[in-house]
Amino acid sequence: MFESAELGHKIDKATYDKEVPALREALLEAQFDLAKAANFPVIILIGGVDGAGRGETVNLLNEWMDPRHIQSHGMGNPSDEELERPIMWRFWRALPPKGKVGIFFGSWYTWAILSRVFGKTRNAELDQSMERNVRFEKMLNDEGALILKFWLHLSKDKQEKRLKAMEKNPKTRWRVTERDWMHFKMYDKFRKVAERVMRQTSTAEAPWMIVEGEDERYRSLTVGKVILEAIRKRLDAAEAPHDAHAPPLLPSIDKLHILKTLDLNQKLTKKKYDLDLEKYQGKLNLLTRSPKFTEITVIVVFEGNDAAGKGGSIRRVTGALDARQYQVTPIAAPTEEERAQPYLWRFWRHVPRKGRVSIFDRSWYGRVLVERVEGYCSNADWMRAYSEINDFEEQLVRNNTVVLKFWLSISKEEQLRRFEERQKTGFKRFKITDEDWRNREKWEDYEMAVCDMVDRTSSEMSPWTLVEANDKNFARIKILKTLCERIEAALK
Amino acid sequence: MFESAELGHKIDKATYDKEVPALREALLEAQFDLAKAANFPVIILIGGVDGAGRGETVNLLNEWMDPRHIQSHGMGNPSDEELERPIMWRFWRALPPKGKVGIFFGSWYTWAILSRVFGKTRNAELDQSMERNVRFEKMLNDEGALILKFWLHLSKDKQEKRLKAMEKNPKTRWRVTERDWMHFKMYDKFRKVAERVMRQTSTAEAPWMIVEGEDERYRSLTVGKVILEAIRKRLDAAEAPHDAHAPPLLPSIDKLHILKTLDLNQKLTKKKYDLDLEKYQGKLNLLTRSPKFTEITVIVVFEGNDAAGKGGSIRRVTGALDARQYQVTPIAAPTEEERAQPYLWRFWRHVPRKGRVSIFDRSWYGRVLVERVEGYCSNADWMRAYSEINDFEEQLVRNNTVVLKFWLSISKEEQLRRFEERQKTGFKRFKITDEDWRNREKWEDYEMAVCDMVDRTSSEMSPWTLVEANDKNFARIKILKTLCERIEAALK
Repeated sequence: MFESAELGHKIDKATYDKEVPALREALLEAQFDLAKAANFPVIILIGGVDGAGRGETVNLLNEWMDPRHIQSHGMGNPSDEELERPIMWRFWRALPPKGKVGIFFGSWYTWAILSRVFGKTRNAELDQSMERNVRFEKMLNDEGALILKFWLHLSKDKQEKRLKAMEKNPKTRWRVTERDWMHFKMYDKFRKVAERVMRQTSTAEAPWMIVEGEDERYRSLTVGKVILEAIRKRLDAAEAPHDAHAPPLLPSIDKLHILKTLDLNQKLTKKKYDLDLEKYQGKLNLLTRSPKFTEITVIVVFEGNDAAGKGGSIRRVTGALDARQYQVTPIAAPTEEERAQPYLWRFWRHVPRKGRVSIFDRSWYGRVLVERVEGYCSNADWMRAYSEINDFEEQLVRNNTVVLKFWLSISKEEQLRRFEERQKTGFKRFKITDEDWRNREKWEDYEMAVCDMVDRTSSEMSPWTLVEANDKNFARIKILKTLCERIEAALK
Repeated sequence: MFESAELGHKIDKATYDKEVPALREALLEAQFDLAKAANFPVIILIGGVDGAGRGETVNLLNEWMDPRHIQSHGMGNPSDEELERPIMWRFWRALPPKGKVGIFFGSWYTWAILSRVFGKTRNAELDQSMERNVRFEKMLNDEGALILKFWLHLSKDKQEKRLKAMEKNPKTRWRVTERDWMHFKMYDKFRKVAERVMRQTSTAEAPWMIVEGEDERYRSLTVGKVILEAIRKRLDAAEAPHDAHAPPLLPSIDKLHILKTLDLNQKLTKKKYDLDLEKYQGKLNLLTRSPKFTEITVIVVFEGNDAAGKGGSIRRVTGALDARQYQVTPIAAPTEEERAQPYLWRFWRHVPRKGRVSIFDRSWYGRVLVERVEGYCSNADWMRAYSEINDFEEQLVRNNTVVLKFWLSISKEEQLRRFEERQKTGFKRFKITDEDWRNREKWEDYEMAVCDMVDRTSSEMSPWTLVEANDKNFARIKILKTLCERIEAALK
């Protein structure tokens, strides 16, 4: 795998001096066109062997291009705010928006590789991490990002020579640390792990480019040219037809589906409701005040038919919580900054710290519900959302998050009754809009979308709870009870 | 000051039960209208004596109103990301956007009060903090925010009684901590400090409202009614004429001003430039690698005439730095999320951690330059910007930030020469726009704005450096040299 990067590639000074000015100008132009078009971000990963010139390459790119449109991230130790969230949170918050270049020195590969090299993890875990990286990059690619992954390589001999030379030069001495020498001793191990990583994560969307690092001129010119060509190619490409095939979903032959199995008319008497409300709100309050609660995070998603009672249910939940520990996020149209990022970015930014409860009134499932039904995104976009969402929630769960997802289901008749009632009642008038009436006309399409959503995103670690909601009392208690059970289980 | 809040205010249950439903409905409606108009945020501070019902009040407001449009912040200990920045950074990042309600339990008052009570600071420092708070709130008010500051009060006897009662009840026992009893022992001291704070910070824009905390019904109804009335009043108020008076600036009688004192034609030979460039870039590089550099932050502002050479100067600075430690932020039009916040919010969000260099290509000074000259904001807005900016930079400096501000000055003739040259040169063509030509026509207006800016915002701790920039070599070296000197002084 590294053979071609151990051949002793070299560029002489004359050639270099001749080629660089034109390359720089072309890079600047490409960067300018990128910023102007602003329809995709460029994500550059610089990895590789110590001493192979990773830092120099990052600096060089900033020198050659316009540093005002580059965001360089030296991903050192995570801050405490980052440590309390899934490991990918810090990369999500650093993603460049469309039109910008983000350079990552230290990336979603670094920790997994080092952990394996130092024997803290095994191959199985490494492979899992790499599988997640592939899926993450596939998502970025699907969102339009241009991903360029460079691996700067040095053979063992060359690395030793280079480290020694850097140590001799007072200007570069500071760059060589004990850690570098320790890494050097583990060169063979490192190479083996790196090879495994390259093999698993060189995909068509985001292949690794292994560059020999010894000769600075060769290295710089190669990296610069690859970047230029890739940006230029992407800029020139006509918008590819994005939505070639219809989604291969199961056809509904017998018209039987999961929502039809619900007994929507389950009821709770006012008396029983009052008793249960006090009981479960009290229980929920106690649970969230337990010392162990500071070690977990709770994310609650509310989805449901229009007028199914999401708002009222949310208030019954928040009523049991201390206002300082929860945040309700209503999901409306994305902002300008959110539109310049991958779809899930606007939800990642609301992932809370430990000991907090984050409640979403509508959520990332909008992609496979309203956006699917109304055609706001392409078929390909919402089809891939299922697995992106599963990946997202898996990361949350692995970070000790209890993910609860409620679908509040009412019958078409009950919805009509509530719509009409709302139009009559003074301060509820704002709850009903023309859009609600329009959505109602697509009742069956939404039903199908809900069934697909549940089929494809309900898992043991992050299950959907279908809530029979024709009776508000019944629905609210079912939600509170489920919340208590799930949190209780997580605290054990 | 607290006399009226020790009278034993009480509301009987019948009255309370009668009044609450209408109040809740009116609050919901007001909140809905607020969200719809989305032209100002509501900032609610809940402070006061332990045990006076601050937490309960925050929870109650979330219960009465729509929690989806409320952001409640229990400001506990700052995170490490917050600790590395000026103390106000955490409040800036938590400010509610227009149309939303932000409730702060623990605010910009809390730490200053506690520090004084526990004898860690003296009155002089407390007074300074309070003066800063007043200025901060004045800025928020000028930006349109509605600020409501509640102080929940209990007499000493009542506090003791209440704490004991809470301890007896298993449902509230957890709320009473050792810290509460310790605070209780310092009641008299606390009261004295609180009174001083109220006195100094009850302004016309944001007066404190002292509410007796003993009777829950009285407290809740009072707070709810005040909030309702204030939001409603602000919503109903017609847009006040914002710009009544012309700014009282010094007239320029003799046409002499500071820019005219510059000798713009100072030059540096190519030979001397090359030597100096290496010298000062090397020095800057060494300085930023010093261990003590991790304890400071550097913020560099570049302003100047169009085509004065900001970009080139910035690249000479970044060329000396490690790309992982700096970030260049070009300031363009504000985004949608930024427009929903006070003017300085979009700069606060780029305030870096320790050990980092943040470079702004144009900056917060846009308010008193382009926005003033082009009339993008009202006279009152840019007039108040001088002191807001001074406050902002003072906070940076107090947090160990070196603030450097460069004004790159070229002559009108030199600008014309550069404009014409740029239009000829291939990859520089994008640097010149129609707007540049339009700005040029207002040369004298800009000159006046620059002189006012320097007069009003150049201080010993955060001085402007005027850079004679007709000769690019001269300008670049002056900038690098100034940077080195300022950073060197800060590291001593």
